[in-house]
Amino acid sequence: MTAITLTPPYLIFLGRETRESYAKTGAGLNQWRPELCKGQIRLEGGTVDLGLPEMTLEDAQKAGIKTLVIGTAAVGGSIPDEWVDLLVEAAERGLHIVGGVHTPLNNIERLKHAATLSGSELIDVRTPPKHLPVGTGRKRTGKRLLTVGTDCALGKKYTALALERDMKNAGINATFRASGQTGIMIAGTGLPIDSVVADFVSGAAELLSPDNTDDHWDIIEGQGSIYHPGYASVSMGLLMGSQPDAFVVCTEAGRTHIEGWPDFPLPTIQDVIDRTIDIGKQFNPAIHCVGISVNTSPLPSAERQPYLDRLSAEYGLPCVDSILTGTDAIAKKLKKEG
Amino acid sequence: MTAITLTPPYLIFLGRETRESYAKTGAGLNQWRPELCKGQIRLEGGTVDLGLPEMTLEDAQKAGIKTLVIGTAAVGGSIPDEWVDLLVEAAERGLHIVGGVHTPLNNIERLKHAATLSGSELIDVRTPPKHLPVGTGRKRTGKRLLTVGTDCALGKKYTALALERDMKNAGINATFRASGQTGIMIAGTGLPIDSVVADFVSGAAELLSPDNTDDHWDIIEGQGSIYHPGYASVSMGLLMGSQPDAFVVCTEAGRTHIEGWPDFPLPTIQDVIDRTIDIGKQFNPAIHCVGISVNTSPLPSAERQPYLDRLSAEYGLPCVDSILTGTDAIAKKLKKEG
Repeated sequence: MTAITLTPPYLIFLGRETRESYAKTGAGLNQWRPELCKGQIRLEGGTVDLGLPEMTLEDAQKAGIKTLVIGTAAVGGSIPDEWVDLLVEAAERGLHIVGGVHTPLNNIERLKHAATLSGSELIDVRTPPKHLPVGTGRKRTGKRLLTVGTDCALGKKYTALALERDMKNAGINATFRASGQTGIMIAGTGLPIDSVVADFVSGAAELLSPDNTDDHWDIIEGQGSIYHPGYASVSMGLLMGSQPDAFVVCTEAGRTHIEGWPDFPLPTIQDVIDRTIDIGKQFNPAIHCVGISVNTSPLPSAERQPYLDRLSAEYGLPCVDSILTGTDAIAKKLKKEG
Repeated sequence: MTAITLTPPYLIFLGRETRESYAKTGAGLNQWRPELCKGQIRLEGGTVDLGLPEMTLEDAQKAGIKTLVIGTAAVGGSIPDEWVDLLVEAAERGLHIVGGVHTPLNNIERLKHAATLSGSELIDVRTPPKHLPVGTGRKRTGKRLLTVGTDCALGKKYTALALERDMKNAGINATFRASGQTGIMIAGTGLPIDSVVADFVSGAAELLSPDNTDDHWDIIEGQGSIYHPGYASVSMGLLMGSQPDAFVVCTEAGRTHIEGWPDFPLPTIQDVIDRTIDIGKQFNPAIHCVGISVNTSPLPSAERQPYLDRLSAEYGLPCVDSILTGTDAIAKKLKKEG
């Protein structure tokens, strides 16, 4: 029983896409793992450009590329018919294919057949491995940081990736651990924790950050919020199984309600700190909050840094915007704590 | 999208079982729903006897029985080959078949074929329905009580069933809502909440206790414990989606640690009350603890009632053993609260 594992280097497939916002997966992968992205391939009419070398499937094969990653989403989350010929040819040439779309790759008969013949793998990063364990609560070696949130979609993945980068720059041994589909593509491994059956969520979280050396930090991508009416089960299991020493609260400036749940006010940062410690201390008495990461982009430019400064004074913690300022301030705090 | 639904009356299948403890499902169903259990059927050598009329499949069919319920578990949770001939004949005769064993009934080709031909249903009560919704947090009409626990396997289902009985006797309009496999068989409907994908746990819990009349109580079978290293995700989603007005804490006298997790001390009753209210109040500010249900069977007979009395004085709440004393004291409190 292991996590999902991808094999680089990658060719990024961008379909016939013309809208940057639909190609976030490919862009994120290229932003965070440029050394693994060797080329891009588009269908006629596609204009989204990651700035990677344009390749045919034959070029990719000659260049030693191992895996085609579907880097764009179609409306409705399916695989459009117009993609299938190219994907089948890629599988025939022995490239593995990685997708995070709703349609399982294995449901496309021609693709499945081609992959079986060539021995290439079809990997759906939304599908957790079978036979996950039940959580043991056993204390693992090494240190762990979890990004938690007041809500969904406010930078938990981005913050974790920035922390991995900034902690490495500060000389800390750190590894990003992915719990969602885009994160898994970037890390090349991980577990889609929200797709795991409820009985196995904390067990899957344990698997995600195994024993490590004493000086090593796993930086675990959080999901949802422990206060979320729909997704708190996921956040709960991830918190229990991660047994973090440290956590960073992620939020968004000006967000007043849980997005899509207008009857639920956003919990305060203090609410999230308190409940995260209350639950987490059963598994790791050392748990503490080491920073706050705010998406300040809804604010006018001139107000963004002052907002962070005020919050930092209020909570007595480093307060960053992972895109605007990076997460150096938190990395420095962790370095100092040792 | 609906819950699992069974069609009575039932014929209880007991296999070749000789050990009462392996036939708990059949015994529980017959204990709580005797009016729905019309007969039993055993293989040669089977000695477990529920006291129901012994029937052949032909008898059952003539008696108007609609469903054969597998009321016993085999070692390993599979369906032994020696059961298959009888199950196939039952399906051929148009009886629905209900199982809670690990092997999905549909995985047995002969059985699937027979059921397809006759139009009978094969129902695995461990398998949740497809297309469950995400939790909305929307406040539903009617009242709800959830049984919560310090751990697994200490009477949450039994307490909920006893409460349904005793509340009805007290003139309260009450319905038991099943969240686990044996409960589903007893209720004839429900959702196996621990088998639901994490993203949909609170949504499934919402589905389990739909809108009802203002004077009606849903008595919801709890699962696991909000402090359980393996299963707390399930308890969390069930608590959030149930939005209970009232809850009963279930525990066992003398249990010191979470069973099977010897490194984890059992949370105190107060711990469970505090966290249940802390989480539950987001969805229902009226949430409060209305009683404690203790399995006192590990104590010597003479100490059982005094133990309940002491606990009742300590917490200022009705304290019952759902088998020893029934749950009248809690029903009375609810009646008084109105």
